[in-house]
Formats: sequence, structure tokens, C-alpha cells
Amino acid sequence: MAGDSFGKLFKITTWGESHGPAMGVVIEGCPPLVALKCKEEKIVLRTESGKETGSQLFTCDEIQKELDRRKPGQTGITTPRKEQDIAWILSGVFEGKTTGAPITIVSWNRDVRSQDYDFLKEIDRPGHAGFAYRAKYGIYDYRGGGRSSYRETWGRVAAGAIAKKILREFYGLEIIAYVLQIGKISANVNSEKVTLKEVESHSTRCPDRVAANKMETLIKEAMKEGDSLGGVVGVVVRNMPVGLGEPVFDKLDADLFKALKSIHATKSVEIGLGGEVAELKGSQHNDPFTTDASGKVKPASNKAGGVLGGISTGENLLLKVAFKPTATIRKEQETVNIKGEKSFLKGAGRHDPCVLPRAIATVEAMVALVLADHALRNFAQCGHLKK
Amino acid sequence: MAGDSFGKLFKITTWGESHGPAMGVVIEGCPPLVALKCKEEKIVLRTESGKETGSQLFTCDEIQKELDRRKPGQTGITTPRKEQDIAWILSGVFEGKTTGAPITIVSWNRDVRSQDYDFLKEIDRPGHAGFAYRAKYGIYDYRGGGRSSYRETWGRVAAGAIAKKILREFYGLEIIAYVLQIGKISANVNSEKVTLKEVESHSTRCPDRVAANKMETLIKEAMKEGDSLGGVVGVVVRNMPVGLGEPVFDKLDADLFKALKSIHATKSVEIGLGGEVAELKGSQHNDPFTTDASGKVKPASNKAGGVLGGISTGENLLLKVAFKPTATIRKEQETVNIKGEKSFLKGAGRHDPCVLPRAIATVEAMVALVLADHALRNFAQCGHLKK
Amino acid sequence: MAGDSFGKLFKITTWGESHGPAMGVVIEGCPPLVALKCKEEKIVLRTESGKETGSQLFTCDEIQKELDRRKPGQTGITTPRKEQDIAWILSGVFEGKTTGAPITIVSWNRDVRSQDYDFLKEIDRPGHAGFAYRAKYGIYDYRGGGRSSYRETWGRVAAGAIAKKILREFYGLEIIAYVLQIGKISANVNSEKVTLKEVESHSTRCPDRVAANKMETLIKEAMKEGDSLGGVVGVVVRNMPVGLGEPVFDKLDADLFKALKSIHATKSVEIGLGGEVAELKGSQHNDPFTTDASGKVKPASNKAGGVLGGISTGENLLLKVAFKPTATIRKEQETVNIKGEKSFLKGAGRHDPCVLPRAIATVEAMVALVLADHALRNFAQCGHLKK
Amino acid sequence: MAGDSFGKLFKITTWGESHGPAMGVVIEGCPPLVALKCKEEKIVLRTESGKETGSQLFTCDEIQKELDRRKPGQTGITTPRKEQDIAWILSGVFEGKTTGAPITIVSWNRDVRSQDYDFLKEIDRPGHAGFAYRAKYGIYDYRGGGRSSYRETWGRVAAGAIAKKILREFYGLEIIAYVLQIGKISANVNSEKVTLKEVESHSTRCPDRVAANKMETLIKEAMKEGDSLGGVVGVVVRNMPVGLGEPVFDKLDADLFKALKSIHATKSVEIGLGGEVAELKGSQHNDPFTTDASGKVKPASNKAGGVLGGISTGENLLLKVAFKPTATIRKEQETVNIKGEKSFLKGAGRHDPCVLPRAIATVEAMVALVLADHALRNFAQCGHLKK
Repeated sequence: MAGDSFGKLFKITTWGESHGPAMGVVIEGCPPLVALKCKEEKIVLRTESGKETGSQLFTCDEIQKELDRRKPGQTGITTPRKEQDIAWILSGVFEGKTTGAPITIVSWNRDVRSQDYDFLKEIDRPGHAGFAYRAKYGIYDYRGGGRSSYRETWGRVAAGAIAKKILREFYGLEIIAYVLQIGKISANVNSEKVTLKEVESHSTRCPDRVAANKMETLIKEAMKEGDSLGGVVGVVVRNMPVGLGEPVFDKLDADLFKALKSIHATKSVEIGLGGEVAELKGSQHNDPFTTDASGKVKPASNKAGGVLGGISTGENLLLKVAFKPTATIRKEQETVNIKGEKSFLKGAGRHDPCVLPRAIATVEAMVALVLADHALRNFAQCGHLKK
Repeated sequence: MAGDSFGKLFKITTWGESHGPAMGVVIEGCPPLVALKCKEEKIVLRTESGKETGSQLFTCDEIQKELDRRKPGQTGITTPRKEQDIAWILSGVFEGKTTGAPITIVSWNRDVRSQDYDFLKEIDRPGHAGFAYRAKYGIYDYRGGGRSSYRETWGRVAAGAIAKKILREFYGLEIIAYVLQIGKISANVNSEKVTLKEVESHSTRCPDRVAANKMETLIKEAMKEGDSLGGVVGVVVRNMPVGLGEPVFDKLDADLFKALKSIHATKSVEIGLGGEVAELKGSQHNDPFTTDASGKVKPASNKAGGVLGGISTGENLLLKVAFKPTATIRKEQETVNIKGEKSFLKGAGRHDPCVLPRAIATVEAMVALVLADHALRNFAQCGHLKK
Repeated sequence: MAGDSFGKLFKITTWGESHGPAMGVVIEGCPPLVALKCKEEKIVLRTESGKETGSQLFTCDEIQKELDRRKPGQTGITTPRKEQDIAWILSGVFEGKTTGAPITIVSWNRDVRSQDYDFLKEIDRPGHAGFAYRAKYGIYDYRGGGRSSYRETWGRVAAGAIAKKILREFYGLEIIAYVLQIGKISANVNSEKVTLKEVESHSTRCPDRVAANKMETLIKEAMKEGDSLGGVVGVVVRNMPVGLGEPVFDKLDADLFKALKSIHATKSVEIGLGGEVAELKGSQHNDPFTTDASGKVKPASNKAGGVLGGISTGENLLLKVAFKPTATIRKEQETVNIKGEKSFLKGAGRHDPCVLPRAIATVEAMVALVLADHALRNFAQCGHLKK
Repeated sequence: MAGDSFGKLFKITTWGESHGPAMGVVIEGCPPLVALKCKEEKIVLRTESGKETGSQLFTCDEIQKELDRRKPGQTGITTPRKEQDIAWILSGVFEGKTTGAPITIVSWNRDVRSQDYDFLKEIDRPGHAGFAYRAKYGIYDYRGGGRSSYRETWGRVAAGAIAKKILREFYGLEIIAYVLQIGKISANVNSEKVTLKEVESHSTRCPDRVAANKMETLIKEAMKEGDSLGGVVGVVVRNMPVGLGEPVFDKLDADLFKALKSIHATKSVEIGLGGEVAELKGSQHNDPFTTDASGKVKPASNKAGGVLGGISTGENLLLKVAFKPTATIRKEQETVNIKGEKSFLKGAGRHDPCVLPRAIATVEAMVALVLADHALRNFAQCGHLKK
């Protein structure tokens, strides 16, 4: 049973290889009548053998905006690969609204330089997925990393844009991810107050301007060395509804941990105080209850990070994710090739020296996908009979 | 869509409330012909109204042994609640072998003191799931924590015993979890060498005897104060096969993160170097390749923790999980009741001052369940055509 | 991936073998706060080895009533096996209401005469599942047919009782199945008007009294001959909501066909005019539209049987299911044993000469399970945004 | 939870609307290393606004061949709509072999005359899915029937071509569907011997040449009248393996019934003797066992149609499916429009007077998809431990 789908009621399936014809995503279970501002264009496809076909296609600014955030080549500190990255909607939208049918969004691959990857027929990059794909499937589309490429997240972000829209309409919900640490430089971020604008205003997507500048310098140094950097991303979700999450296994935070771990290069996920809880006592860690302005009972503090027993409490969701340094580096590495012969590997396609600034969009998308799925799941089981 | 099932091909569903009639688990997808050493007993059920029924039931030492590790009341440092905890097999086994049909295992609840929980009609424990269950479902079986009780893990451990058996038979695979930290006391453990016997030989289940003794003292102090402690559990899996994991979403580590986060009280999960990767460069973190004795290519080191691109590399799986201090404490806490009135909460049923020593069995079970499921999944897709 | 679960949001898993300790069902996804009139009883379990345990259990008249309809030994024309068949609720109900947690219902097996089946170690009954189970799993619990026994439907009927209750509360929905044909005797039934009382008032569960009496005679003759009879069951569902069904694969009627084919001994399923449509023209078969009293558009006739394009139209659901004659007969049959030696098989445990009168309850249960599942599915995707 | 996916391990998701940009299918879980003879072509996409993109695409004769069988406009007796219908493979294939990654196949829509459907804004066709879609989703892409169009089956047939290939490689398995009845004309077909060539050699796809000629005449008459015809399709599967099917719910025949009912316009499904069993006695219907040439036990006859207890016996699979006459006819029909006003509907786009000759390819595809899925499922659970 392949693992290319995510979510149960709001479900996505991504497909496509980094240097194949196209990347795409199919979204199933999206409610009907969600307004998507689409533009129709006539498109002509012409093949070498002279076959020709015509079709109308749709683009959607709301989706494109999110994709542009994950696009490479945005600033001097990301991979120079230029993806055209236009999202074409092929199904599921009619007269600017979703219909309840599957929504397919596709991006044609371009600026593909597969010959850069020819050496990978013979050698696997240390720390890279290639070795494991080859061992598992007995075949590996090594061009650009094939299916294991970071480019696969394209479909997640496209689908996440629709999930975000639904969550905004349902709850006024807001998801903000930001760079919290790169290498040894940590930022100071107030999760209550941080804004999307602050995050987007710096190439590093770190909202603490002082730290951000240091991070930028660090990244440039690593680029020069042909090396790469790890770091930590923080996430806050505001205007959370109460009651999302399906214990005992599909707890809201359990699904978030899976979602975030499914992103390339992540190595640890934390909620609330995360690993710090190990040193605390119950009397220090427990959030007592109080009442809000309207008299409703709610936690007085939020050390828990917005979830109790796997169910959202209505407090802000607070998460942290650590990313390893990109495996693909230009610096020479001693290793063995697939025949076991000692080899020196140096350079390997184009890559980000630090994936975090671009990863922000993917982190937000995965959080949005989990929340949209759980919104529908909670609604299915608990929406009916209570009122 | 409720979340009481885990796994896709080797799938379990747990059911039962802490103070309901029984706890149970149904295992679907277990291969046929797995030998389970069972004993048959005639059992008589007699009801108050005089109805009576007879039935044969089975017990199985291999399952019971694992359950005894998670059982409360084993030592002076766990909850005094005594669960009888006998595992009765009700289906799916015939003449000492699995048949491919669903296996149901049940434990009758006993030593239930529900009246201890009557105060919970009026007040939710700070940091406890009760508040969220009530908000979500509009009804909450508060007796003993109902479905959110740690007792729910009983079924996970029972099913995990069978998953472990299968993994041993398939691969000679060995899963060892151990206590690595309690409060501020950290242990020194060599994951390559640690043995089950070392873990089981101390009440804390910490294999570093010096640290373990300090942890025991710390736990006893917390008990005296009526407070609770958090900590960290380490996990190593040895004799891992290559090729488990289903990218791009059902990566082996993504499913492990979900599995471990689904355990009560966990707040962070890490693989390999975990959060430490943030400070490393690619040239420091990448594991180069080498060849083993037989000339097969394999990673020369294991900073990755046994997984690349979501697929197992054959190296040991290395995980860490942080647990928060138990929410339920005897110490007085100021909070509000469900009507929003200021209240003081003190004492609340019986509880563990530190859940980690008992959590070991559950951690191992969840890891086993993920691996057994992925073994079948890999086999389904990749077992056929390669040879 | 085992196939012991049915439904996606309102999901059941049945477990247990005919002559094992117990039969059971786990229901996941049931909405909370469904009232079930339960009675609590203390129960004492005593084992041969002297172990003893106490537990409270629940019974529920609403469930028991449905089970009594499928119970063998009700009349002179069913198998003489007496199942005690009391449904014990082990989880998911608190203070007479569902909680949203999994509901487990169990029945202890009794009046088991496994020795009657000892000959099945050596020989498979012609037309019976035993041969195929043995070939597939390499092991077969032949006692009473094990998992392939009609007794497995017990759990379906218990769960169906809760599904029916939900559907009544949601829509005032009513499901009536009835015997339409046995052997060559066909009944005349008006599906618009037939009542549960008419069905239940005759041992054959055929509401056409004249045909019913002939059927009873026919069944008694078959009993005398040691032979068995096939037939046809009709189903009508009234007060159907509009909009249930999830094209393009999980069409309402596609899921109903699967559900009904999953019942033992069914060989054909039809909706609306069924096989008769082959001879009609579009102008004869199409149901034109009209308006109802309130001016709402609806089909003017119902040749379609209540479904268009896989989605319910609000008209009555009309189905027919053909059952083969019970495979197990007392009459001598020439066959070969599992070693391939020529053998004569005669008699084999206790069996129904005609399963249809008892199958009514199972047919209704499967229809109810499909509809409850689709009610939640429709609600999840289409309940949110429309208003 | 939307219903656009089919299968559990070999899983397909179809997407696209009849008059949208494209139709497509995503196949998940296909084993790696399946050889598909693909041709690469460079393709240029040019949009109205001047954006341009280049991409390589693949075509595959083995897939195209199946699609050409379902293509409209093949003969004088099908809809004159001409679909270009070229299958482009966008992912999951590398150097002519599957990689285990999702395979996406797409066909651009062309020869679309959406203006033909403008009248459908105001009126629903009697007997057509439109009414139900509108009621369920609150929005309906009526152009060409949108998602409910028969064109949706395109993706099923494309995916079915790969499923057939796998089944041929695994078992030498052969699936043949044929037209058995149209209107009142029935054919005489020997399911043991019928060949694909016989089926393909007549425009009706009825292998009984005498009946076929009469059917062709009948269809031409219906075309003249502007009316449509129903009929019956037969299916035989040869070289079936023993052991496919997952009782108790995912029985092989239960999944086949669902698969076949999910095809547009089907109203009844039968296996083996189907509805005829109602009139038989057990002693007449049971297939006794015998031994084959090699001494292996097998059924001596095949009234059961190849399945016992939901598991394949190794005998030929024998199925029958009845199709209703196409709902869309040119003949005038009295009905009401969506405002409830009396209306006369006449003509409506282009349509088949009798869908059966083209439905053959879809029937075979759905059977292949069920069998490929069950092959992997059986392998996952029962492939491991037996040897």
C-alpha cells in the first residue's frame, strides 16, 4: 500500500517526479461551493509528431500566491533553479466554485537539467534518499531526485492553499510558520503577535530582524563553502476551534507530528514546551482553568500548546520542527559508489544551502491539511446530534 | 471518522473505558499460521439476574509477559491500582495458530473505584484530557478518565506482543526502549549494546544503574510531595531490514512520530540526532557510504537514525520521546470548575508519579505495530515482481 | 489487508468464530449522545483454574429485539441450534448514551457441538466456503464453519440496530426487508405499503399470506428430504433523504450491492427494475420529473429504484437479492475428500433448510449500515458550506 | 468523504469533467519494474496570454489499445462525438518501467461542444444523474454531464490496462467481457471458449454472429427513433488463482458487485447462476469436488461462478451485468424544469443509443482493478509465512 495520499476526509495525493513531465496533486473531499478566483485561458498543446490539442485551463491567484512562497530562486540565498511553477487547475472547479469533485492541479516541469544528475547512476549522495529508494524499489528515477525531491512539496502547497481558505472561512483561522533558528543563531519571536508580513519581509523568513540578518550572513558563508545548514521552524495557529482531533490514535497532535515529519529533512517535532517538559513537575506544567470574558471555561495558560488528550482546546497551536542541513552539498565528500568502490563526490545539481526559508510554505500547508481534514472529521461524527 | 484504529495492513482497534466492563483490542490483517502458545480454560459467566453461560477462553504467555511490563502496581514507584490484567483471546486463534481472522483480546476491568472520580462531574483536572473530551463530544465518561485513561494502552501492548513476534520471525528484529532521563537526571546508555535484561532489572527501567538509583530517589520525593515528573525515553531497533517505509507521506519515521505522539503525555519525538541537527552543517551530518563485510553498500555511520527519505536503511532505528509530568497530581491546584467558579483541586484517584517506567512497554508496542504494518505494506507492493 | 471491517465513517468490524468463545462487533464513528436504553448487570466470571473476576455489563433491548429476529430456533422451519444470543455492551456507552468512543457488543457462544464437525477435518462440503478458506489461509477453523458461518452475521445485526436508530432519528427512515420468493413460489408484495408487522407475522417472513403458507409447506418438504431451498428477498427503504451517495465509485447503490453480496449465499443483487431494464427503451424506463405538493421537483415515477447517478433522489430505495439454497444439506452427496479420495458426504451439523426467513434481519442491517455511513459522509463533505 | 478512489492496495483515483480541460487517473500501489512500452515525445504548451512551457510526455501502446475499445465514434452505432483520447503518462514511469511511484495518465478533452448543453441550466434530463448532483452538491457542472458523464470511465480503462498486464504476468489471467443481450435479442455464448477476437470482430461486441447482426439492426432502429436500448453483458475470467478475496466483507464477489455497479447505467449484477439459484435445491446447486489431472482437489462443476465464501476457487469467474437504456434520448419527453414548470425535453447533446458495445472495455477494466487489488491484498497477508 503506497503512501502518496494524506488525510482521510480532506485528502490529497501528490504525484510527479522532479524531472518528469509535471508535478501534480489531486484533492478529494473538498466541500462544494468554495469560491476560488480563477482565470480561464485557452491553451494549445503541440507535440513533436505534429499531434495538436486544445484545451481551456484555469489559474488561481489564491493558490499561486502560496506557491510563490515555496518557489526556488526567489532570493540570493536559495537554489538558482527556476521553476515556472504556474498552477493549472484541471478539474473540480466550475464557474469559480468547487463542485465537490476531485480538484487536480498541475505544474509543468521546466528548466530541467537532468544531465546534471547523470553521475547519480553510479553513486548515491550521502544522507540522501536515493540509496533507500534504490534498495526498496529496485529502480530509482535519480534525475533531480525523482520522487524524493523537495519539488514534490509543490502539490502540498497548492492543496494547502485551498485548505487554508476553508479554515479561514470556517473559523477565521490563521497559520503562521517562521524561521526560529539557523545553525547556532536563534531568533526571539512572540508567537502571540508575529505577523505574516513580518515573516515575508526578510529573505530568511525569520521575523526577528536582528537574528535574520545574522542568519543571512551565515547562509551566504555556507554557500561559499559549498556546505549547508540546518535549523528550526516555529509554528503558531490562531483562532483555533475547540474539539478537533480524534483520539485515541488520530489525535490532532499525532497527525501534526506525522505531517511535519513527512516533510523532507525534518528530524524532530515538538508541541507546547516540547522536550523541555522532561525537567518539569506536574504542578509546574499543568495549565489551570479560568474563564474568558464571556464566562466560558478555558485554560489560563498554554504550556500544553493548544491540545489536551489529542483534542484542540481552542488555545493557539504551538509547534517546533527541526530540519537537518540539506544532504546535497557541493563540498567534496568521501564515500563509496553503488559497486562499493571508494569515491569522492563533489557537487550535485543545484540545491539550497538552507532549506528553511522555502520550507515555511510547506510547513504551513501541512498544518492546514491536517486541520482541514480534522475539521471535516469532527463535523462528520459530532456535528449531527448535539444541537 | 473516529480515530480508534491504527495501521493499514496490520491494523489494531482498541476499545473500552478505564472503568467500563473491559478493555480490548481487535487485530486485523495478522498473517495466518503464526504460532501462539495458548492455554484453553473453561470459563463460567454468571449474572445477577441468574443468567449463566459457559465458554472456553484462551490465555497466551507471550502476550501476558508484555502486559505484565505495563501493569501498574509492579513496584513501589507506580500507581497502587491493581489491574488483574489477564489477557483473554476471544477469536482468530485455532489449535495454537493464527488463522488470518481478526484476533480479539480482552481484559476484564477490576479493582475499579469509580466513586474516587465523582468530583470530576464538576471539575476538570488541569492539564488533563477531560476538558477537551467534554467540549468535543458533549459527554464524558470521567470515571478513571474513561477512554483517555492510560489504561487504554493495554490493548496496544497486547497487540504489540504479536507484532513483535512476527518481526522476530521475519527479521530477527529486536526493539528495546529504556528510560533515558527523569526530571534533570540523565542516563548514559549505549544504544548498540543495551539489553532487555538491563532495562528490566531496575524499577525505573533505566539501564544506567547509577542514574537509575538517583531517578528512583527523585520519584519517591515527588510521590511524597504529591507531585509528578516528566522525562525522556530512548528507543533502539536492531536487525532492521532495508526498504520499510512508504514515501512520500507514509514515511517510516513519519508513521513512527505519529505512533509515539499518540501515546499519552508525549510532547516531542526525535529521530537520529533529532533537534541537534539544527546546529550542524551538511558535511558534518551526512553519513557517507561504505561496504560491509560481504561487500554490500551501507551507511558508514548512523547520524540519520536508520531512515533516509522515509525508508529504512538497515541501520539501527534510533528514537527519543519526551513525556510531560503526569497531569493528575495530589498536590493542591487552583483552577475553576465547569461552571467557571474558582476551585481548589487536590487529589484525584490513583496515579503514577512518573509514567515512564511503565510507558516503556507501550513505546515498544507502538514501534512494533508500525514496523509490522510497514513490513506487510512493503511486501504487498515490492514483494512480487522483483525476483 | 483483511476485510473484516465495513463502512468508512460509521464503521463496523466483526470478529469471532462460530464455535469460538464469543462473537462480537466493534462500531467506530457512532455519533455521541445517541440514547440507548441499557440495563446494567453485575456479572461474575469464574474460570476452571479458580481465577475469578467481576464486571458490570450492559444489555440493550433495542439491540436485542433485532438480534432475536435473526436467531435460529425461532420456529419449526429453522435450524434447531439454540444460541443464547444475549448482546452484552462492553464499551462506548455511558449513562445510557453513546460517547463517541468505539462500541463493542459481544455474545458468548453456547450450545456448541463441535464434535458434530469432526468429519470436516477430512472433507469439504460441496458448495461451502471451507474449501476456499483452507486453500487461502493454509488453516481452517472448521468447527461450525468458523468465520464463514452464518453466525458471523450476529455482529452485523447488532450494529445495524444502532444504525437503524440513528437513521430513524435523522430522517424518520424505515427499512423493510421481506421474503419475495422461495423455490418456485413467488409472493405479491406492495413495497409502498408493506409493514414490519406483516413481515413478522409469519414464520417465513413473507407478507403475502397465501404465498407464505405455500412456502412454509415447501420448506417442510425440503427438511424432510434433507435438502435446502433458495429464494429472493425484497427491500424497501422509505423516507429516504436526497443526496446520499458518493460518486464516482462509492455510489449509494454500488455500496449497497457490495453490502448485500457480502451476506452469505447471495448470488444476485438488483435495484429498481433490475434485470428487467435490459428489455426496455429509454423512453419507457426514464422517470420524468414532476413537483410534489410543496412545489419541489421530484421524479414522477420510481423505476430507477431511488438512485440516479449513484445519489439518492428521495424516492423509496427498491432492491432485490437472490439467495442460493444452503450448501450444507443432510442428503447424501458424492464428492472427494481433501486427499482426493472418492467420498460420500451425508449430514453435517445443524442447518437451516432455507436461510431466507432469518436472513431478513441481516439484509436490513446491511442496508442500514450503508445508509448510516453515507449519511455521515454526505454530512462531512456537503453539510458545511451550503447554508 | 468523497468516493473518487477505488481499490485499497492497487488504488485508482479518477478526476476530470466531460467538458473540463482534461480527464485523468492516478494509480497508486502499482508494483515497481512492470515494463510498459512507452514512447517519449516533446510537447509544447502555448497559452493565449503568451506563456509557453515545454515538457516531455509519454505514450504507451498497451494502454492506448484498451482505450481505443471504449472510444466513441468507432462505428456507426455509437455517439458521433470524437474524442482524441490520447493517453499521456505524466508520472511514475522511468526508462520504460514503473517505479512504485503514482502513475498519472491524462487525456485532453477536445471536440467539446458545451453550448449543446446550455439548456441543462434550466432542466434535468429524466433518468439522468444531473438532478441528483444538483440536489447533493448545490452546484452541477452540466456541460456534457460533468463528472457523471460516461467519459469518466476513460481513467478506469487506462488504469485497467495496467491491472490487466500485471494479472497476465502474475497468473496468465485473461478477462473477456461480451454483449449477451440487447433489448429482447439474446446471444448464445460459450464462456469456456469465447475469444477476444470474436468479441472485437463485430460492432456490437457480441460474439454470436447471428444475434449480433440482429442487435445491430435493432440499434439502428432505435437511433432512427431517437430512443435507446438496454442489455446484458457477460464476463468470464480464465486462469484464476485460488485464494483471492478477503472475507467477511471484502469478499471477491462483493467487491466485483460494487465495481460493476459503479459503472454508469448498471442495474443488476449476478455471479454464477445468479438469480436462477432461487429456484434450485441445494442438491442441485452444490458443485461436488473432484481431482484434476495432477490430483489436486477442485470443484467438479462451476455453478458457483468461481467463488465460494467470497474466495476464488480457481474456477472461471462468471458474471452478468444488466445495463439500463441510456437516459439521454432525442425523442421528446414530457417533464418539469428545475423551477417545476411543465416542459418538453427533446434532444440533448450527442449520445450512444446503446452503451453496451463500448461498455465492454469498462467492464473488463473494473474486473481487472478488483483482481489486481485482491492479488496484492492476498499477497500481503498470506504470502509471508506459509512457505
